[in-house]
Amino acid sequence: MSEPGACCAYLGPRGTFCEQAASALHPGDQVELVACASIEATLDAVRSGLAGRAVVPIESSVEGGVSATLDELAAGPPLLIKAEVIVPVEFALLVRPGTALADIKVMGGHPVARPQCRQWLAANLPDALWRQAMSNADAAQQVADGDLDGALAGRFAAHHYGLAVLADGVNDNARAVTRFIEVGAPGPLPAATGSDRTSVVAYLADDHPGALMDILSQFAVRGVNLSRIESRPTGEGIGRYCFFIDCEGHVGAARVGEALMGLRRTCADVRFLGSYPMADQRSGRNGQGGQTVADREPAEIADAEFADAASWLDRIRTGG
Amino acid sequence: MSEPGACCAYLGPRGTFCEQAASALHPGDQVELVACASIEATLDAVRSGLAGRAVVPIESSVEGGVSATLDELAAGPPLLIKAEVIVPVEFALLVRPGTALADIKVMGGHPVARPQCRQWLAANLPDALWRQAMSNADAAQQVADGDLDGALAGRFAAHHYGLAVLADGVNDNARAVTRFIEVGAPGPLPAATGSDRTSVVAYLADDHPGALMDILSQFAVRGVNLSRIESRPTGEGIGRYCFFIDCEGHVGAARVGEALMGLRRTCADVRFLGSYPMADQRSGRNGQGGQTVADREPAEIADAEFADAASWLDRIRTGG
Amino acid sequence: MSEPGACCAYLGPRGTFCEQAASALHPGDQVELVACASIEATLDAVRSGLAGRAVVPIESSVEGGVSATLDELAAGPPLLIKAEVIVPVEFALLVRPGTALADIKVMGGHPVARPQCRQWLAANLPDALWRQAMSNADAAQQVADGDLDGALAGRFAAHHYGLAVLADGVNDNARAVTRFIEVGAPGPLPAATGSDRTSVVAYLADDHPGALMDILSQFAVRGVNLSRIESRPTGEGIGRYCFFIDCEGHVGAARVGEALMGLRRTCADVRFLGSYPMADQRSGRNGQGGQTVADREPAEIADAEFADAASWLDRIRTGG
Amino acid sequence: MSEPGACCAYLGPRGTFCEQAASALHPGDQVELVACASIEATLDAVRSGLAGRAVVPIESSVEGGVSATLDELAAGPPLLIKAEVIVPVEFALLVRPGTALADIKVMGGHPVARPQCRQWLAANLPDALWRQAMSNADAAQQVADGDLDGALAGRFAAHHYGLAVLADGVNDNARAVTRFIEVGAPGPLPAATGSDRTSVVAYLADDHPGALMDILSQFAVRGVNLSRIESRPTGEGIGRYCFFIDCEGHVGAARVGEALMGLRRTCADVRFLGSYPMADQRSGRNGQGGQTVADREPAEIADAEFADAASWLDRIRTGG
Repeated sequence: MSEPGACCAYLGPRGTFCEQAASALHPGDQVELVACASIEATLDAVRSGLAGRAVVPIESSVEGGVSATLDELAAGPPLLIKAEVIVPVEFALLVRPGTALADIKVMGGHPVARPQCRQWLAANLPDALWRQAMSNADAAQQVADGDLDGALAGRFAAHHYGLAVLADGVNDNARAVTRFIEVGAPGPLPAATGSDRTSVVAYLADDHPGALMDILSQFAVRGVNLSRIESRPTGEGIGRYCFFIDCEGHVGAARVGEALMGLRRTCADVRFLGSYPMADQRSGRNGQGGQTVADREPAEIADAEFADAASWLDRIRTGG
Repeated sequence: MSEPGACCAYLGPRGTFCEQAASALHPGDQVELVACASIEATLDAVRSGLAGRAVVPIESSVEGGVSATLDELAAGPPLLIKAEVIVPVEFALLVRPGTALADIKVMGGHPVARPQCRQWLAANLPDALWRQAMSNADAAQQVADGDLDGALAGRFAAHHYGLAVLADGVNDNARAVTRFIEVGAPGPLPAATGSDRTSVVAYLADDHPGALMDILSQFAVRGVNLSRIESRPTGEGIGRYCFFIDCEGHVGAARVGEALMGLRRTCADVRFLGSYPMADQRSGRNGQGGQTVADREPAEIADAEFADAASWLDRIRTGG
Repeated sequence: MSEPGACCAYLGPRGTFCEQAASALHPGDQVELVACASIEATLDAVRSGLAGRAVVPIESSVEGGVSATLDELAAGPPLLIKAEVIVPVEFALLVRPGTALADIKVMGGHPVARPQCRQWLAANLPDALWRQAMSNADAAQQVADGDLDGALAGRFAAHHYGLAVLADGVNDNARAVTRFIEVGAPGPLPAATGSDRTSVVAYLADDHPGALMDILSQFAVRGVNLSRIESRPTGEGIGRYCFFIDCEGHVGAARVGEALMGLRRTCADVRFLGSYPMADQRSGRNGQGGQTVADREPAEIADAEFADAASWLDRIRTGG
Repeated sequence: MSEPGACCAYLGPRGTFCEQAASALHPGDQVELVACASIEATLDAVRSGLAGRAVVPIESSVEGGVSATLDELAAGPPLLIKAEVIVPVEFALLVRPGTALADIKVMGGHPVARPQCRQWLAANLPDALWRQAMSNADAAQQVADGDLDGALAGRFAAHHYGLAVLADGVNDNARAVTRFIEVGAPGPLPAATGSDRTSVVAYLADDHPGALMDILSQFAVRGVNLSRIESRPTGEGIGRYCFFIDCEGHVGAARVGEALMGLRRTCADVRFLGSYPMADQRSGRNGQGGQTVADREPAEIADAEFADAASWLDRIRTGG
């Protein structure tokens, strides 16, 4: 077995989209991928030192934020996001070799799989019963075991379980993707690449009408683009929210750093979740990740403007 | 059986918090409550005319927005929210009469029940196995059937299934509540009560940095308070969101109407979800719902200001 | 003499830039132009019914707002702006025929003339004494009377006073212009032309830090462009200001009307000063005024969007 | 005569409100006060080294900003504001001893004096002729010389010219005040006192509709209060403005410094005019100036919040 630091935990079992995400981040075989039973267990593997990294889903373009991941990042022992990868979610219908459509009486998959394939199922398997499974790969295992006749899962899961792909691309929305993050223990940040994302959780100081606008202004006034904002309940009652915010740029950049300081001063609390290379969505589709988006103002220019303003202020203050 | 119009569908089975919400909205026995198997089925009961009303959960103070409800409201055949009620989520441990803590080997409940009772379970039942059920009430049924030894459910479920309450208030967060809505077919709106809420879904026209601030400004500039904003993916890819927005006031009020017209002009699309009496959280705890929150500017004053401004403008335009 | 209603009062005497502005607005001889001794007297001519219209300067591109005009519009008996015209301010050196540069010992003009010609005077008449006059035309009269040797005035003043133009274009800033307005008694507004301006004075309800931003938001949120904002003291102490605001569009347009209603609701007071055809700066130079600026969203499109939103709201409110 | 550095130039002649302002700032006789003929000459006395300080009016609560002062500060050779003082503008009617009201046929004063005393003059001297003078003190001199029968001026001017106060407090608005500033050569700033003001001139980078809101946001987002904003033409044509902005706080304070850096990055140009003790209006009435306004958040607290945020950011960036 590998050194713990060389292991990467992921939300298993084998054959999930999450395994595919972990493989995209660690394409060779130098990093051992270790399947875990739940998002909590996957993240705890890093916290306990059993693994150096962990890959979990954070956001689906169909289902939205993954609550378990968000809540662990916001309220659990601190972890840092080190990387992200975007994986297209394309479902196949996996069966035992020799099974035909007409043979499928009972089928299954993860609960989120079914609504994503609703149209195909209505047209092709209107009478099949549905049984939800712990994961798509779990459903595939049940097909292999003879407990189900068919499973909705990624086609890459077929060979793990000795199954055949009876139909591919059965998802209704051809552009469905899921964003996965890789987290590690707190410590040095990934170096800035020129195309980075920074993630934080912000808790409003109070719930006056303009409180959310005040938060957004902290970014806008420094020219920092937000790529995502998602509200989550804080658990303290209806109407009490925190906000997961992703912005463009590395926290090492002046404008991002100043925006985060602004949040820190005006919010009840802010938790920094990481700065990491941004996965371009298109490049993510083939698992390459992290390419530079060309039409963005270079971070160096913005930093130079901040440095110029700082030296101007310094001259003013010193009467120079 | 009652006339369809007199039926109220709810997310069953019997003994769920949702049934309790429906009972709070229809306290006597003049309205027949009909349990449905899923949120989709509950809402479809109204769409098909099988029921006049339907009650479903929309937001948990612990788990956040209920995706199935939000997605049905945003993208399914139109429905109108007619009422809301807030129900405290207090879990009890239900067992067959005579069962002691030490007898509980296998227990279950809805997947969201377990994390809400994590601390109590760790302290009192650290070794019990957990099996997730379709609903808390389903777990109670399994206890009655002898398939489980204990179920996490509302204490009101005990009598439906002939069970005993072994422990009450086992949830970690004593203030957990769930907000339920009652929907009906499109048609006349509930009359304004002076303490109302209006819900919409807004789709950004584009994703320029300030797009969300522009939406919030439409409310702020008319003095309309937002009580909730939640982003949801539109299904068109990472980074494409719509926003569920709850604001205070009835759409019949001038300031709310003007704010919604502003949204309509500046957003790619806006779907109106309803104007309905606001459930005060405290009053909701005892199922009364809909009381006026005292420290709010009366809607009549705001409307009078709008009317004054409109007649002022009219005088200007006509040179009067 | 003409009927009072056919008279147009202007800030005299003859030969001022203001007379030129009045002539540009009334090019033929159907309207009798009547010179008045001060801005107050010019405006009072309309208030008393002695004249149907009055032309006064409101803003200089060099000197800024003309206080007397602004204060009369804000606090005097109400008047309506009916038109505007922009006149280039080009000074000539007027002398008695036969006078050479070396003969000029004492010269004069309106106090604002001198700083606008500072460089030319320093280079060409460094030793001439300066005596300020009530107006440029008054200085020209004094030259004619032999009391001064030269006057800074518009070249068009020369023939009124039998003077010669010794030097033309002696102003330092070749692009200096003054904006003049024509006002009339309250009554019907000029019809919308598709390229109009609306002017108001807004008094802040209080002086909280964001009060001015709140005012600006009323325009921004409806997509109304501001062309000018100028603060003026209210006379109630340092730190108490009102704001003269010019925006693009006619008050009859939905978006302008709604923005003004927003001001009315949120400000302590708003005085409407008028909606009138916008003078394009270039067209104003040759006295034509009022041409359409091409790259502006047609008012009809904006009005159609407002009408669409209003009918959408109406359908919502009536459950249609 | 004193050393030039010990001289304080002011807008003369003797007996003006400006002399009173200079006396309030230098109450003893250690600083020699030197009268100058114009605002330009007063400021040039500092630029040329003839005086160490200069006192000029910058803002009248009745007339608004003093254009000559603003334009010199914005576009002339740089000067720094070192102090401010607010002087109540109370006019007296000065006459030669023995003159009665009925004896006054011709009177005079600075052009701004007359409108401030309009009501008193209408009630008491409706038939007296008015001749405008270069300053109120100049009118007093003319009274002493027998050229005028009465002058509107500060009562303190009487003894300079051997005149008597026939009536006091003849101004209509009892609260009229003028703010004067003392400027010096560029160099070290006055130390922060805990109640300071900072002044800048900002030139918009372009004139898009929200440009002014963007400027205001730079202050609002850092919690810096604006005490004054005034637009002035840049001389480049109608519609091109710069903005004189006064904010509360010393540029040495973190939040003010950061706001100014934000201006510097987003504006076409920013000129810093100074940080100096704020004159409380009431204390200014008796010439004491510069007292602390109690209900303001202490600058030390704001600075501590900025320091806390900066060290938090530092920990994040270094992975500590």
